[in-house]
Amino acid sequence: MAKSIAGPEIERLIQLLAKLPGLGPRSARRAALHLVKRREQLLRPLGAAMAEAAEEVKVCSHCGNIDTRDPCTICTDAGRDRSTVIVVEDVSDLWALERAKALNASYHVLGGVLSPLEGIGPEDLTIRRLVERVAEGGISEIIIAVNATVEGQTTAHYIIDQLDGFDLKITRLAHGVPVGGELDYLDEGTLSAAMRSRTKI
Amino acid sequence: MAKSIAGPEIERLIQLLAKLPGLGPRSARRAALHLVKRREQLLRPLGAAMAEAAEEVKVCSHCGNIDTRDPCTICTDAGRDRSTVIVVEDVSDLWALERAKALNASYHVLGGVLSPLEGIGPEDLTIRRLVERVAEGGISEIIIAVNATVEGQTTAHYIIDQLDGFDLKITRLAHGVPVGGELDYLDEGTLSAAMRSRTKI
Repeated sequence: MAKSIAGPEIERLIQLLAKLPGLGPRSARRAALHLVKRREQLLRPLGAAMAEAAEEVKVCSHCGNIDTRDPCTICTDAGRDRSTVIVVEDVSDLWALERAKALNASYHVLGGVLSPLEGIGPEDLTIRRLVERVAEGGISEIIIAVNATVEGQTTAHYIIDQLDGFDLKITRLAHGVPVGGELDYLDEGTLSAAMRSRTKI
Repeated sequence: MAKSIAGPEIERLIQLLAKLPGLGPRSARRAALHLVKRREQLLRPLGAAMAEAAEEVKVCSHCGNIDTRDPCTICTDAGRDRSTVIVVEDVSDLWALERAKALNASYHVLGGVLSPLEGIGPEDLTIRRLVERVAEGGISEIIIAVNATVEGQTTAHYIIDQLDGFDLKITRLAHGVPVGGELDYLDEGTLSAAMRSRTKI
């Protein structure tokens, strides 16, 4: 019956909106209605922004970031410290670190993690390009900021192996208690890591 | 710093996505990234669907529904009972009733409720058009399905006044316990309404 509520153009809009993360079938309907009621203020500009992004978006050939330029905004930013490269799994991790204003460094986006079960090997990631970047010189520290999962750690070890022989400082993010977090809710692994890495006040 | 993560096209996409209901600034970023990673499967089709909807969407001159045709899909549906008209505040209410498969009737979308505080008077709603539809004949029942708020009830009374003199059955949705609802969580008004309208098992 849902099919017959509105014309096929609106139904198609709803179906596509429902594929966005954070929107289900019901909230996609609400979003579609919100859009069609704001035709000139939102629907048309958003459609145009999507068409433009679809035309312009590219993967940075230098670091693997997604941007509308290649090299990307970060790689071409003169104010960045290029001697430090933060290695992340995904662009979303890069964005998260940027939001946190964690470090004014460069990045390298792997495009995933090694996962034999899912058939993802080193050649599916940008590890070779990372080694090339290091070989080109000018990089003194690699911060491996992959997720603290089994696959993430396997990937980290593989990268460390590949970078063996270069004169580099290789670091990883600290484990510990999240800021604002309650000890009672933390897993034992994190707690004992936080205890081992305790710092002087 | 957020400004410098990606190119202006992606930033604009994020800003516009954040205006959708259900998406905040953070989930808009996630949605944007999801889109740009699925350029051909999602970003481009969704942009095109929005452009097309923006071109095609119209308000039904008969019932006030939003559709890509005028008269709308429901008004032109030969299988609908046109002698019964469900009066709703908003298109979202029409969609909700359609999802519920509540009744295979026609609709009339008011476009809001009377609200002197917000300066919304009868001329801002489609009440006059509703009276015209009734005067045109063929309608035997008007179901007033406005929200059970003060403004909704004021609007209902105003409509009933305007329809005085026509040979019509005017009804409203029943008040009662929501299906699956727990009595303990219900307000007193709903509970006593449900008690007054109790039905024989």
